[in-house]
Amino acid sequence: MQILKERILSEGRVLPGNIIKVDGFLNHKVDLKLMHAMAQEFSKLFDLEGLTAVLTIEASGIPLATVCAAELGVPLVFAKKSKSDNIEGGLYQSDIYSYTYKKSVTLLMSMQWLGSEDKVLIIDDFLANGEALRGIVDIADQAGAEVLGIGIAIEKGFQPGGQRIRDAGYNLKSLVIIDKADETGIVFRET
Amino acid sequence: MQILKERILSEGRVLPGNIIKVDGFLNHKVDLKLMHAMAQEFSKLFDLEGLTAVLTIEASGIPLATVCAAELGVPLVFAKKSKSDNIEGGLYQSDIYSYTYKKSVTLLMSMQWLGSEDKVLIIDDFLANGEALRGIVDIADQAGAEVLGIGIAIEKGFQPGGQRIRDAGYNLKSLVIIDKADETGIVFRET
Repeated sequence: MQILKERILSEGRVLPGNIIKVDGFLNHKVDLKLMHAMAQEFSKLFDLEGLTAVLTIEASGIPLATVCAAELGVPLVFAKKSKSDNIEGGLYQSDIYSYTYKKSVTLLMSMQWLGSEDKVLIIDDFLANGEALRGIVDIADQAGAEVLGIGIAIEKGFQPGGQRIRDAGYNLKSLVIIDKADETGIVFRET
Repeated sequence: MQILKERILSEGRVLPGNIIKVDGFLNHKVDLKLMHAMAQEFSKLFDLEGLTAVLTIEASGIPLATVCAAELGVPLVFAKKSKSDNIEGGLYQSDIYSYTYKKSVTLLMSMQWLGSEDKVLIIDDFLANGEALRGIVDIADQAGAEVLGIGIAIEKGFQPGGQRIRDAGYNLKSLVIIDKADETGIVFRET
């Protein structure tokens, strides 16, 4: 997606450890016009016949997933991290390792809001090691929901998350795949 | 806001401890059409001349704040909780007590994305003790930003958060204020 590549090149920064910071338009300060363009792009990339919900994981995936759900006319359901007292029993749970926080966290989703009748589009802002994505896919599987597609804004192609999910048979599409990000610059995969 | 009251009465549940669960349309599964109606209501309630950003706190405030920012044509900036390695220096910080998680957490926002030139609308889904709101208002004050208004979906009027913020001089408006919620039912404040 050309306009996303341009924003990454003009406003993104590469930090030590191959961290790509795009927090000026994607995941801290959020440009809603760009989110809307990305949502329209996802709606073209997937066959979403019968879609019942957009799923994501808190927190940084929520803005993009919200705009996608609004665009597609379905509810958003977001998985929560760890346990709060405001979620009682009847939960799907999936344990993942958070590289961001360097500890294990549990993704939670109420069984009330996802079931075998659902057809879902999973949306997230970033895909690197793919732990959060593995967790939300696991929850969709536990629910017996059909995953019509997985849409990612930015995939780090030099980390294994995307390949693992594709190898497992899911229809994963990323708007931009970055194959290299270091002090010499950012290299995008031709798509 | 009548349609929000009706949704609370038809789909909300009161749990022990005066917890009002509305996770089927507001803060776990999210009804985007309702969010859009709420965003339009906020745009009528406040004078938003010169607005530059919508602020909120991760995670459950983000869907409503996203829809408000899209509706109002400005970026969303959300405060993060605790420290992740993907946020480096240059941060506004405010310590709050989370009644949900029963521990202190630190709200963080990059100084890059909020400054004294900003005029902001703060949005959140729920207001009870008001700790998260106190934190985001503190961050806006640290930045020297002007708070044009604070819009809340559901305020628990029997807890002190809303009164404290109003007493401090902020223009806080809640779409629905609940004065009582127990096994006998839910009582809304006349507004």
